[in-house]
Amino acid sequence: MKAHTEYLVFETKKRKEMVHITDQVEQIVRRSGIKDGLCFVSPMHITAAIYVNDLESGLIEDIGKWLEELAPERPEYRHHQTGEDNADAHLKALLLHHETTLPITNGKLDLGTWQRVFYAEFDGQRRKRVIVKVLGVA
Amino acid sequence: MKAHTEYLVFETKKRKEMVHITDQVEQIVRRSGIKDGLCFVSPMHITAAIYVNDLESGLIEDIGKWLEELAPERPEYRHHQTGEDNADAHLKALLLHHETTLPITNGKLDLGTWQRVFYAEFDGQRRKRVIVKVLGVA
Amino acid sequence: MKAHTEYLVFETKKRKEMVHITDQVEQIVRRSGIKDGLCFVSPMHITAAIYVNDLESGLIEDIGKWLEELAPERPEYRHHQTGEDNADAHLKALLLHHETTLPITNGKLDLGTWQRVFYAEFDGQRRKRVIVKVLGVA
Repeated sequence: MKAHTEYLVFETKKRKEMVHITDQVEQIVRRSGIKDGLCFVSPMHITAAIYVNDLESGLIEDIGKWLEELAPERPEYRHHQTGEDNADAHLKALLLHHETTLPITNGKLDLGTWQRVFYAEFDGQRRKRVIVKVLGVA
Repeated sequence: MKAHTEYLVFETKKRKEMVHITDQVEQIVRRSGIKDGLCFVSPMHITAAIYVNDLESGLIEDIGKWLEELAPERPEYRHHQTGEDNADAHLKALLLHHETTLPITNGKLDLGTWQRVFYAEFDGQRRKRVIVKVLGVA
Repeated sequence: MKAHTEYLVFETKKRKEMVHITDQVEQIVRRSGIKDGLCFVSPMHITAAIYVNDLESGLIEDIGKWLEELAPERPEYRHHQTGEDNADAHLKALLLHHETTLPITNGKLDLGTWQRVFYAEFDGQRRKRVIVKVLGVA
């Protein structure tokens, strides 16, 4: 049994951006030497999330609009009395859940044909870290 | 330490359907021989989810209606320009989160009295797979 | 490899309440003796959730109001025909997801600066249990 940890860094150009990270996660799984187990992926921030879905630009736009409908930017959040202006980013991150776990079989991510992993940034334009921890049988 | 993997297949009669799968997951845990650890359950598709809640038909209907309110069927999603008509199924799957992890203690799912595991299908009527991976101490 | 399990008990004074539990989870990780691995945290109930976000009272209030907007208390849920009055609590729990997994590195929760763990109670004022299971390398 073995655990392997790496950290990814993202600094998006836009404040809100979906970044496709399946390949980076897959490379970490390969480097871990773990053949069978679980791969945990999570931002170390509270205004970003990880999600698994389709690599299709129309759907990615739909997801962004839908998150804005359900967790809109609004001046009147109480959190903004602290000087922040990003309460919506916290709510969007909660909606998508801040972490995901992925299965590893035969040394690879054991995902379905269309399952792709995304880093969902809701308050970017600065350096943010994502932890990837692989746990399993070497 | 040990890992054990099985795949379940579902082909629902209705396009949207909640399928109670606690017993099937429990049987996989038993076959794994793992006494203490975690059981990961996830569809290998991006229009279905796994959730844990009550086995009560009224509540299951409430959940379906509520998902339809928050992530409605609508023709105007950009994803539909690809020829698809199931963008709402992607959004519903994101809302419930595509995966869940369950605890195993003394060789059994360590769930509360009312916690039951469901496969939530949002674009069914075709064969879809769910991966169940058990990781822990034999 | 090792697994370690403890159960926390909460009985909130208010029916809906967010309880900060990072310190209690951290102490369980320390007692587990596990240096590298994953920490699973989940209520054993279907009207409560675990989430990770900011320890800031304004934002905690924003989250409560937002959950009430997206999953409101309403008399007309079908679940209420069973005599229950808490269908909204089930939906709020689904929205935040009923479980979370946290990474452990060097014997500690490997969280970002602002990441704090909360027990989100939506139907409290009675004893409810949370399972914390740590799995990893001792």
